[in-house]
Amino acid sequence: MRPLVLHEDRLLPADPDTRAIARQLYAGIADLPIVSPHGHTDPAWFATNANWTNATELLLAPDHYLYRMLYSQGIALESLGVPAHGVAPAADPRAAWRLFAQHYHLFRGTPSRMWLDHAFATVFGMDVALEADSADLYYDTITEQLATEAFRPRALFDRFGIEFLATTEGAHESLAHHEAISASGWNGRVVSTYRPDGVIDVEHEAFRPAMARFAELTGEDVWSWQGYLAAHRKRRADFRAIGATATDHGFPTAQTANLSPAEAEALFLKVCGDSWTAADAELFRAQMLTEMAGMSAEDGMVMQIHPGAFRNHNGGLFASHGRDKGADIPTRTDYVAALKPLLDRFGTSTTLSIILFTLDESTYARELAPLAGHYPCLKLGPSWWFHDSPEGMRRFREMTTETAGFYNTVGFNDDTRAFLSIPARHDVARRVDCAFLARLVAEHRLEDWEAAELAQELTNGLVRRAYRLDDPLD
Amino acid sequence: MRPLVLHEDRLLPADPDTRAIARQLYAGIADLPIVSPHGHTDPAWFATNANWTNATELLLAPDHYLYRMLYSQGIALESLGVPAHGVAPAADPRAAWRLFAQHYHLFRGTPSRMWLDHAFATVFGMDVALEADSADLYYDTITEQLATEAFRPRALFDRFGIEFLATTEGAHESLAHHEAISASGWNGRVVSTYRPDGVIDVEHEAFRPAMARFAELTGEDVWSWQGYLAAHRKRRADFRAIGATATDHGFPTAQTANLSPAEAEALFLKVCGDSWTAADAELFRAQMLTEMAGMSAEDGMVMQIHPGAFRNHNGGLFASHGRDKGADIPTRTDYVAALKPLLDRFGTSTTLSIILFTLDESTYARELAPLAGHYPCLKLGPSWWFHDSPEGMRRFREMTTETAGFYNTVGFNDDTRAFLSIPARHDVARRVDCAFLARLVAEHRLEDWEAAELAQELTNGLVRRAYRLDDPLD
Amino acid sequence: MRPLVLHEDRLLPADPDTRAIARQLYAGIADLPIVSPHGHTDPAWFATNANWTNATELLLAPDHYLYRMLYSQGIALESLGVPAHGVAPAADPRAAWRLFAQHYHLFRGTPSRMWLDHAFATVFGMDVALEADSADLYYDTITEQLATEAFRPRALFDRFGIEFLATTEGAHESLAHHEAISASGWNGRVVSTYRPDGVIDVEHEAFRPAMARFAELTGEDVWSWQGYLAAHRKRRADFRAIGATATDHGFPTAQTANLSPAEAEALFLKVCGDSWTAADAELFRAQMLTEMAGMSAEDGMVMQIHPGAFRNHNGGLFASHGRDKGADIPTRTDYVAALKPLLDRFGTSTTLSIILFTLDESTYARELAPLAGHYPCLKLGPSWWFHDSPEGMRRFREMTTETAGFYNTVGFNDDTRAFLSIPARHDVARRVDCAFLARLVAEHRLEDWEAAELAQELTNGLVRRAYRLDDPLD
Repeated sequence: MRPLVLHEDRLLPADPDTRAIARQLYAGIADLPIVSPHGHTDPAWFATNANWTNATELLLAPDHYLYRMLYSQGIALESLGVPAHGVAPAADPRAAWRLFAQHYHLFRGTPSRMWLDHAFATVFGMDVALEADSADLYYDTITEQLATEAFRPRALFDRFGIEFLATTEGAHESLAHHEAISASGWNGRVVSTYRPDGVIDVEHEAFRPAMARFAELTGEDVWSWQGYLAAHRKRRADFRAIGATATDHGFPTAQTANLSPAEAEALFLKVCGDSWTAADAELFRAQMLTEMAGMSAEDGMVMQIHPGAFRNHNGGLFASHGRDKGADIPTRTDYVAALKPLLDRFGTSTTLSIILFTLDESTYARELAPLAGHYPCLKLGPSWWFHDSPEGMRRFREMTTETAGFYNTVGFNDDTRAFLSIPARHDVARRVDCAFLARLVAEHRLEDWEAAELAQELTNGLVRRAYRLDDPLD
Repeated sequence: MRPLVLHEDRLLPADPDTRAIARQLYAGIADLPIVSPHGHTDPAWFATNANWTNATELLLAPDHYLYRMLYSQGIALESLGVPAHGVAPAADPRAAWRLFAQHYHLFRGTPSRMWLDHAFATVFGMDVALEADSADLYYDTITEQLATEAFRPRALFDRFGIEFLATTEGAHESLAHHEAISASGWNGRVVSTYRPDGVIDVEHEAFRPAMARFAELTGEDVWSWQGYLAAHRKRRADFRAIGATATDHGFPTAQTANLSPAEAEALFLKVCGDSWTAADAELFRAQMLTEMAGMSAEDGMVMQIHPGAFRNHNGGLFASHGRDKGADIPTRTDYVAALKPLLDRFGTSTTLSIILFTLDESTYARELAPLAGHYPCLKLGPSWWFHDSPEGMRRFREMTTETAGFYNTVGFNDDTRAFLSIPARHDVARRVDCAFLARLVAEHRLEDWEAAELAQELTNGLVRRAYRLDDPLD
Repeated sequence: MRPLVLHEDRLLPADPDTRAIARQLYAGIADLPIVSPHGHTDPAWFATNANWTNATELLLAPDHYLYRMLYSQGIALESLGVPAHGVAPAADPRAAWRLFAQHYHLFRGTPSRMWLDHAFATVFGMDVALEADSADLYYDTITEQLATEAFRPRALFDRFGIEFLATTEGAHESLAHHEAISASGWNGRVVSTYRPDGVIDVEHEAFRPAMARFAELTGEDVWSWQGYLAAHRKRRADFRAIGATATDHGFPTAQTANLSPAEAEALFLKVCGDSWTAADAELFRAQMLTEMAGMSAEDGMVMQIHPGAFRNHNGGLFASHGRDKGADIPTRTDYVAALKPLLDRFGTSTTLSIILFTLDESTYARELAPLAGHYPCLKLGPSWWFHDSPEGMRRFREMTTETAGFYNTVGFNDDTRAFLSIPARHDVARRVDCAFLARLVAEHRLEDWEAAELAQELTNGLVRRAYRLDDPLD
C-alpha cells in the first residue's frame, strides 16, 4: 500500500522565494480558530451528540461531490448507499466503501480528494492512501473510531477548534435542536441561518405543506399578505433568539423587484392560488428578496444571496431518486439589472448588509467586484460550491481584488454538510489566500507586513465583522 | 539569417523545480503514437498517395488560421492563393509564399507559429527561421522534398507515428476514398466520421442538393420522415463499415428538442417545404440532435457536438469568396437549458456517449464541467479551434479538472486539415498537459506517480476509450 | 512612519530567470516617451497653465476610483469633497485628505494604490507611506509643491515625457482651450477626440441643450437629418483642425444597425420628437455608430467604441449627487451579432479603422480576438477601466494574443482624468507587458530578440500607427 502524506507545503507556490513568503504568512494564521458562518451540518449532531455509525454513512452516502463523480463514470447510486426519495437502498456499507476506494483515482485533481485525504490523515490518523487494497483497513479503522467518545460530534467540534458554526434551517422548520444545544450548557457556539426559500418558492412541490408548517410555528394567517410578512418577522426573531445573525436565499436567479405594497399583495394572493405562471413565481421570488432586504435593514440580519443553480437538471434521476442528487448545474447569472430594483429601494441603507455569491465566475470582474466596490450594503461572498477549490479561489482573488479590494470580501465559508471536511476546507482556503498574498509580495505589489495583516483579516477579521458575530443583534 | 531552434523545454514551466517534474513526465509520453480521433484531413491523400505539389498549396492556401491573420492586416486573399468560390486565383505560389514569409512576425505568440516551426524543423529539416530573406530557401526546400517518395502522404503518416486518424465526411458524401484505402492493403488506420449537418440544416444554401445525394446514396425516400430516418441509419452503418466510431454535429447553438414523433414528422415536412422560419430551422436542428442521440444509443457511435460558431460573419467576403474563409466567429453558448430536452430523453442511457466541445470558455467551469461531472453519457472534448493553444489548453485544465476530474475528458483532438501540423499539435498538447500536471505535483496536489499515470491517460488511454477504438461497434 | 519604496522589480515575475528576462525587456522601453491617445484630462490645464490648488482637489475629489472604494466602506462622499450635482460640498480639503489617508489600506491590492504611490514618490518625492500619521505631511508637501512653477501643468507634461496627449470633447462642446494651446506657441502636442454621444443619445437628459449648442457651433439645421449629418461632418473637421485623429463612442451596448437612408431619416425624426421608445433610442444609437463608421471611412478618423457600462446604477445616489459618481457598472456585452450590421456595410473598407474596447472579459477570447484576427478594419483596444490593472492586463494578453496576435492590438491607453497618474499607468502597462513577454521567452515560445522588438511595438509602435499619429489626416 502507498503512503498517505499531507505535504506541509501543499498548495503553496512552487517558486522558492514566493513559497518562503507564503510559508511565513501561513504560519501566522494556520492555527487560528475556525469561524464557519454558513453551512449545512445537521444541528441534531450537536444536540444529541450521538456517535456516527460507519464510514459510508458519514463520509460517502451523503456527499454529493463524491457520488456525482462516481455516477458520472457509470456507478449506480444504489450501490453507494445513496437514498432514493429519502429511502436508503439495501447496499452493504462496506461494499459501498470498497467501490468508492476502487474508484478513488477519479478524484485526482479535485478538491474532494484534498478534503478527504486531510480528514483521513488528521482526523483518523491514516498513513496509507485510499485504494482498493486499503479499503477494508479504512472502513474498519474509521468505523471503530467513530464509535468512541473522542469522535462524538462535540468532541470533534472542540478538537477542530471551531469557534462559531452556523447551520441552515427553513422558515418552516423547527429550531428544537438549536434550543436543545442552548439548554445543554455545552459551550460550543452553533447557531442557525434563516432560509425562507421553502415558503417563498411556489414552484417547489412542497410549498403548501411548508406554508402549513409556517402557519403552525407562527400562529399567523400566512395566506394573507400581512399575516405572511408578520410570520417572517416572527420567525426571524426566533432565529435571532438562538443566535442567528444571517439569512440565506437560493433562487434560480438574482432577480429582485420593487413592487408597490398593493401590487405585492395582489401578486402574493395570485401565487397562493391555482392560476399562476412561471413568470409570476419568479416575480414573487424577486419581490420577496426585496422584502427580506427591508426586514434585514430593520433587524440587522445579514442577507446572503446564493443564486444561479438549475436544480435537479437530470429528469430521469429526479424521477427515480428525487431532489439533491448531484444534478444541480450552474447557469449564467445576471446581477447588474437583476439587483437594481432592490438597490433602488435599499441601496444606500446604512444598516442593510448583503453578501453576494455566484456560480458564474464571468461575473466576478465584470459585475460583482464593481458592485461591491461601490455599494455600501454589498459584500462579496467567497468562491462557492464548484468554485470552492484551489483554482476557483485563486480566480476569485485575481478577478475581484483589483476592483473590490480585500475589504469588501467576507472571508471563507465552508458551506458544507460534511462536518469532517471543515478543517480541511478552511485549511485549503488559508493556504490559497497565503499563496495569493505571497505572489503580491513577491511581485512587490504589497509589503510583507500588509500581507500578514491581510492574512489575519481574510481568516478571521472580515468574517467576524461581515456576519456581525461580535455585535449581537437583539 | 537567424537560426530556427525548437528548444527541448518549450512550453514547460520556467520554475526550475516544476520544469524538472514536467520534463520527466513529458519524457514518459513524448514518443507515444498519435491517436487523432477527430479532424479534417482529405482521405484522398491516403487513398491515392499522390505527392503534394508545393509549399503554398500544401501549407498556406488551405490554412484558415494563416490567411485570416494575414487578411486582418490588410493582405488580399487573392495574393495568398486562397480560392474564391472554389476557384483558385492566378497568384504565383512562390510570390504568395514570399508575402507570407515577409509577414511571418504577425504570428508571434500564436499557436500557428509554433505548429509551423515544428513542421519546418522536424518534417523539412529547416534550420533557419522563416523571414523575407529565407522565403525562397524555404519554398524550394519544401517543394523539392514534397516531390520525393519519403514525403508521400502514407510515408509521412508512418513517419509521424499515427496509429489512428479520423477524417470527416458528410452524410451525403461518398466514402470511396475510405473504401479505396481499405482495399489497398495499406495498414494505416484511417476512418471517417459521420457528419450529417448538410442534410439537417435547412438554412444551408446546399441543403437540397445534399438531400438529393443522400437519397441516391441510400435509395430511401428522404423527403418522408421515416425514409429520412432510415437513410440516416443506413449511412451510419456505411460509415461504421469503413471503421467510423463517431458522429459529429456542428450547429450554431447546442439547442436540443424532445418532440413527439408526430410533432417531429410535421416539423420535418414543414422545413422540407417552402414556408419555414429561422425558428423552425433551429428547432429542426435541435430535434435532430436528439434523434441522432437516439441512434447513437442504438448503434454505439460516439456523438460529438461542436456548437457555437457564427459562420461566414463577413458579409462582403462571403459575397466575394464564399464559405469558410476564416470569418467564423464564436458566440456565447448555453448548454444547461439547451441540452436538457435531449438529456431528459437519453441522459441516463448506459450506451450513449456524447462529447461536448465549446468555443465559449466561460462555460468550462460554469456549465460543462458540472454537466460532465454528473451525467454518465457526457464527456468533455478538449479545448477547441481558437482555444487549441497553450493558454487555451491551460485554461481548459484549470477550469474543468476540479469539477469534472481528468477522467471525464477525452484526450486531445487536433481537428485539423493541415496534415503536416498533426505531430506539432499533439506535441503542444502533451507538453501543456505535462506542465499542468507538473504544477499539481510541485504544489503537492498530486503524487508524482499519479501524474505519470495521468500523462499516459491524457495522451493515449482516455482517447481510446472515449472513441471506442478498441471496441469495434459492428 | 513606514517608508515608501517603489521596488525596481515591481510587477515583474517572481521566478528569477523569468524576472531577469523581464528586467532586460523593461530596461529597453522604460524611458520611451509617453503616447496617450485616449483620455479625459482637462484641456484648460494646458491652455491656462494655472497651478492646481491642493492635494484633495487635484488627487482625491475628482477620482472616482478612490471615492467609490471609500463610499463602498460607508464613507460619505460629502466628507471627501465630492461635488453633488456639480456643487462642491463644504468639506475642508485637509479633513477630507486625512479621512482618505486613514483608509488608505482599503486600496491594498488595487491599481489605485500603485498609481498613487508612484505619483507620491516620483512626482512629489514622498519617502514615507500614506497613512493616518503622515496625512498632514502629505497634504502640506503636495499642496506646497503644487503652488510652484515646476508643478504647473505644462511643466509636468514635459517632465513626464509626454509626446502626445488626447483629451475628449463632446460634439457640442467648445474647442477653445485646444485653440488656445495651438495659439500659445507651446510645443506640447495636446489634441482632442470627437465624442458625439451627447447629440446621439436621446435618453440623456441633456440631449436637447446639447443639440442646441451643436446647431450654434455648426450653423446647421441639426433637427433635419441632412443638417444633422452635415453638422457632424463640420465638427469632425473642426476637431481634425486642432489635431484630433480619432472619435469615441460610449453607449450601453455595441449594437449597430444598417438602415436605409429613408429609414434612418424617419428614425431620426422620431427620436427628435416626443414619442419614442427605449428601443427607438437604442436603434438610433446603433444606426449612428454605422453612420460614424461611414464618416470615418471618408475622413480617416479612427473610431473607438467603448460599450457596455450601465451608467449611474445607484438610483439613490443619482438623485442626491447626479451623474458620474462611481456607480457605473459593467454589463455582459455582445459584439458578434451587434457589430454585424456595421461590418456588413463597411467591414471590408481599407480606410476605416475601429478600435474595440470591452468591460466584459469573457468576450476577449470568444469574440474580440477572433473578430480582430479576421477583419482588416478592427483592432483591439487595451484592457479598460476596471480591467486596466496588472491582473486585467495579464488576462487581456493571455486571452487575445493567441488568436489576434500582438499586431492587432494598439498599445496602451491611460484613459484617465487623473493627470498625475499618467506616468504610473504607462509604467504599469510596460511592466506587465514585459512580464508577459518574458514568460513567453522563458517558456521558449518567443525568441528574446522578438520579445525586445515587441516590447517596443507595444509601447510605442502600435499606438502611433493605430491612431495615425504620423499620418496627419487633413
